Formats: sequence, C-alpha cells, structure tokens
Amino acid sequence: MQGQGEEYIKMSHGAGGRMMQELISSRILKRLSWDNVADDNRGIEVPLDAMDDSAVVDGIVFTTDSHTVKPLFFPGGDIGSLSVAGTVNDLSVMGASPRALSLGMIIENGFPVEDLERIARSIAETTRAAGVPVVTGDTKVMEKGAIEKMVVNTSGIGTRPPWLDANIERVRQYREFSSRWMVDSNLAEGDRIIVSGTVGDHGIALLSFREGYRFEGDLSSDVCPLNGFIEEALKVGGIVSMKDPTRGGLSNTLNEFSEKSGVGIMVEEEAIPISQSVESACDMLGLDPLEIGNEGKVVIAVVEEMADEVLEVLRKRPEGRKAAIIGRATNDVKGVVMETLIGGKRIVEAPMGDPIPRIC
Amino acid sequence: MQGQGEEYIKMSHGAGGRMMQELISSRILKRLSWDNVADDNRGIEVPLDAMDDSAVVDGIVFTTDSHTVKPLFFPGGDIGSLSVAGTVNDLSVMGASPRALSLGMIIENGFPVEDLERIARSIAETTRAAGVPVVTGDTKVMEKGAIEKMVVNTSGIGTRPPWLDANIERVRQYREFSSRWMVDSNLAEGDRIIVSGTVGDHGIALLSFREGYRFEGDLSSDVCPLNGFIEEALKVGGIVSMKDPTRGGLSNTLNEFSEKSGVGIMVEEEAIPISQSVESACDMLGLDPLEIGNEGKVVIAVVEEMADEVLEVLRKRPEGRKAAIIGRATNDVKGVVMETLIGGKRIVEAPMGDPIPRIC
Repeated sequence: MQGQGEEYIKMSHGAGGRMMQELISSRILKRLSWDNVADDNRGIEVPLDAMDDSAVVDGIVFTTDSHTVKPLFFPGGDIGSLSVAGTVNDLSVMGASPRALSLGMIIENGFPVEDLERIARSIAETTRAAGVPVVTGDTKVMEKGAIEKMVVNTSGIGTRPPWLDANIERVRQYREFSSRWMVDSNLAEGDRIIVSGTVGDHGIALLSFREGYRFEGDLSSDVCPLNGFIEEALKVGGIVSMKDPTRGGLSNTLNEFSEKSGVGIMVEEEAIPISQSVESACDMLGLDPLEIGNEGKVVIAVVEEMADEVLEVLRKRPEGRKAAIIGRATNDVKGVVMETLIGGKRIVEAPMGDPIPRIC
Repeated sequence: MQGQGEEYIKMSHGAGGRMMQELISSRILKRLSWDNVADDNRGIEVPLDAMDDSAVVDGIVFTTDSHTVKPLFFPGGDIGSLSVAGTVNDLSVMGASPRALSLGMIIENGFPVEDLERIARSIAETTRAAGVPVVTGDTKVMEKGAIEKMVVNTSGIGTRPPWLDANIERVRQYREFSSRWMVDSNLAEGDRIIVSGTVGDHGIALLSFREGYRFEGDLSSDVCPLNGFIEEALKVGGIVSMKDPTRGGLSNTLNEFSEKSGVGIMVEEEAIPISQSVESACDMLGLDPLEIGNEGKVVIAVVEEMADEVLEVLRKRPEGRKAAIIGRATNDVKGVVMETLIGGKRIVEAPMGDPIPRIC
C-alpha cells in the first residue's frame, strides 16, 4: 500500500512529538507562513511558526485545539471538561487572561442525545469554574461510520492582564528581558524550572480505563482549567515562561523550552513529582511517565531569585500541592539532561510519537 | 434501535435548518448560556444565544466553523479554500475586519501527504487572497475508520474597522439605529434586501460532482472570501445587516432576519438571481435553489434610500456582477413571503434539515 514513494499520514504524525513537528514544519507551516506575516501592520507578535501554545495578533491571544479523546467519558473528566481546560490552559500559559471560547462539535449520526447533554453539562460546569464562557459555536453531523462518536474543537481568545506587565517588571529586576509574552523562547541561564504537580496522571488514567487494566491506587485524570492558579503565580512575579505539558508530556515541554531558548536544561529525577500509582503503572507497561500527557499541570520557568516565592504560592492551592522545583536552565549541558536517582546522567529526548494515542 | 424514549442525533441535526436550531437551543445552548454572561464586565456585546454569524467579546469578533465537506476536492474549490472563506465571511458579515484564523485539522491515519499538501497550498492561496493569515493551528490523527479522510475547523478573529462606524452614521441619517454590529436582528420596515449574486451554485456543484450527474452548463462552487467585497459595500454606507447564506441557503437567511428582527420580509421570485444550470439541475432533482447552501454570497439589508447606491458598487466587482435587490422588510406580511413568477404568493419557510448533506 505504501510503495512507489508515496507517503501517508501516520498516527504518530498527530501525537505531538517530533514526528508531528517535522510534518507540520516541512509540509504545512512553510506553505501557510507568509513572508510578510511579521509585518507590523498585521499586528502579529507571536506568529504561527513560533509553534507556541497560542498566537498573538493585535494584542489578542488566540489558540485552537481539537479533541479526539477515546473514550469520551473517563475517570476525572470527559471530552467536555478536557476541551474547555485544554484551551483555557493554552491561553493562560502565554500570560493571557482567557476571555471567551468557541465550541465546534462534530457528531456521528445516531449519537445519543443523552450523552450530548451530559457533555454540554460538563462543558458548562468547566467554563463556570474557569470563568470563561463559550460565546460562539458550530455543530456538524456526519454519517454513521464517518466519524467515531464525536470530536470537539475549542478555540479561545485572551487579553493582556495588568499583572503580566507587573510580572515582567519583576523579572527585569534580576535580568534582561525583552519579551512581552510567556513564550517558549524566553529561558536563560539560571532560570529555575517548576512543575505544578505529579506528571503522567491524565494519560495513564485514560489508558488504564480504556484497556481495562486494574492497577492499584486511584488513577484519575488531572484535567483542570489553570487560569486562576496561573494568575496567582504571575502576581508573585519573576516568571519568564510557561507551558502545559500535554501531548509529549514533560519531556516534550522541556525540549521545546531548551530548543527555542537555545539553552540547556538540567533536571533531577528525584525532584519530579510522580504518584505511586502512575509510577507502578508505567513500570509495568514499560512507559516513561515523562512522556505521558497531562491536562491539569503547568511547567513554569522563573528567575532564580523568585523561584521559592512562586513555589510557595503554588503549593497553597489545591492544584499545586505537589509543585516542585525540578531543575534549571544552564549552559553546562546541551538539550535536556536528567540526573538520575542512581547518580547517572541521561539525555531526555522529545518523544518521536506518543506512547498512548487519543488521550486528548 | 430508537425505541424506549431514547433519542439519537440525526443527520438533519447538523444541517443548519430548523432541526438543528431546535436541538441546539433546547439541549445545548440553555446549558452553555450563563445567566450572568451578559454582564458588562464580561465584555460580551453579541452573546452565544444570539446565534449570529459571530460573537463579539471585548470588541473582538470571534467565530468558528467545522468543515466536513465530501469530497475534499470539488469543482471550484476544496476543503482548504472552503474553510478559509467560510470563516472570513462569518466575520465579515458582522461588519468586522477579519484579522487572523486558526486551523484545526483532524486527519485519518493513512491519508496521502500529497493531498494534505494540496490542501495546505489551497489554504495558503485563499488566506493570501483574503489578506487574513492562519496564525495558530493544531493537528490530530485518528485511526483508519475513525474519521472519513479529514475534517477541518477554522476559527477566526476580527476587529472593528473605522468604516463600520461611518456606515452606521449613514444609516442614522435615515432611521433610528442603536446596534453597533451587523447582527440579524437589525432589520426594520422599509429596509431593502440585496443578494450579491446567483444562489445555489455551491451546493448543486458539489452534489452534481459527488453523485456523478451530468447536467448541462458549468456547475462550479462559488466559494470565495468576501471581506474585500463587503468592505467596499460598507464604505458606501446605509447597511443595517448582512449574512452569508450557507447551510439552509437563502430561505434560512431570510427567515433568521425576519424572526430575529421581528419584521416580515417580502421577496420577488423574479428578482432572485439563479444560474440556468442550477435552475435546471434543481428542477430535475426536485430541489429548491433557495434552500441550497452558498459559499461566496452575501445577503445585505440596507436602508431604502441607500439601496441603489450599494447595489451599484457591488455590481462593479466580479463577486457582485449579478447582485440584485430581491425584496424588502415589511410589516404587511408575517415571516418570509415570496411573490411568485406566476403572480401568486407563497410562504418561504426555513428548511427543516438540509436537502444536500455534507456540502460544507
């Protein structure tokens, strides 16, 4: 089927790892990025080819995400809460205040209205929790067999909050900083890396539920809108960049930070929070918890001098009880390097594909 | 299958007609619309439950559309040009200047990369033609059989252009007008209705190609971004509302105007531009061209005194060569009424479903 030099999309192309980055960069991005797109009169501050969590145009932060999660309902959440949280978080990690969401639903003919109402209820609850309403929507129905149950796209817009400027002022007390948004390329030598809680929960909970594994302990998705939590952290100040470690997990996030900022990152394995149940499940399945997607966590890069203060505030919130400083940006290493529990060092690479498909 | 009082989504629920409106209003909207969503501090000028072409939040015009068109490539366009034009037009008919688009692609495992590149090229060309760049995106891949080839979501943001205020000033020379945007509820007695060209082209071209019919004449989709065209019309002034007659066609557009504005609409069958090939095809297939979706047309409501001037400007552009005044808003009738060619009158109802599924 795949002979004669023809190429076909593979599952790994949609998995958020290096395979997808390469496909998008080489086949799509180069066509969609206009030469003149950075022109001042287009108002684009963060363009498409930054491949960051959101773009910024005319001071408006703008992002999109499609959700193909399987199954639609899982421990700790469903496609509704996931869609809202994912887009709210993509806006928030840019430093923006999320203001409104769009909701595009594509539904299979024959889908139970009861399930649709349950999802609508979950969307409503999550938008209320986040304080970010759905303001516009679109619904399409495809024939039975043309789409598996339901896919949801949520796009979102955010605006610049006053505390973002205050946060940046605080950064400037300690080092040069010219960026206006919390983009991936903002890290510099000395910055500390904080992760807001245990990693791997969403992906492992979903996999375990989907496949009917019976691991010990409570496996539940961490799906959660983080805008209020991130706002509190920004109000402390000194934060230079943020990212939500979704597809590709913590490994992918750290590699994007390192690559785009042109600085190495050294992390300590011991410091990375992982729940006992996720750790055992990963051991048994041969998965690396650092490569598993999260939906209610944020990775924060902060100037060294402010790291403890930010951490303290994060830990006071339920979303951040297990927050920890896991490493630092340093020119002593290239890429992302981890000091392991047994005292060795290993390179942490961005995953090629995704060990668990369709978790978001 | 559908016994025991359980309900299931049907194709007609996704078709843009009354079935979908009812489903959305009763099952989804009432859950998603917060009681407090109209609060001033949320900055929402045009809310979700207006069910207009776009929402307006913090002065930002925001819209979303998912595209499930089948087949992906058709005479006159493809899913790429359709996605860009559809969203650019939804922003434009609010009176906004479209500024940026998002691109969410959901692709089937095994999809040819060559086709993906062809679609990316088409997206790029259409964004350049419109002057509106894609600034943010997301790609997901689903297993073979979990999605038919490809679905594309495009959301868009627009800002308020100076000529919109000038247009409204011109309206106020002739009648009271308090709305800031070109929403469906703006019509009043005496306003003239213009359609920018022949109706039914997109839907009939797509159906004919998909089913392999061999009608006489050139059947080609009218898919086209209309932002430049609409800008010229607004610069004339006196326009009170606009809508692109996509799913549900002209019938649905006129009924939305009438219902939301609380005024009747009288149109003349003779005045409605329809190409000979679409007319013959509709005759043969027993379809009503007024119910067929368009992708490069706009319906404009304008104060009586400015109607001829707006029409003249529209006709000078290639997109508007066949523009025509087709009727007027009037309290003499309830709903939408058409004076037929043979001198009778018939009620034009919003279609229940869509006579041709998956045309957009």
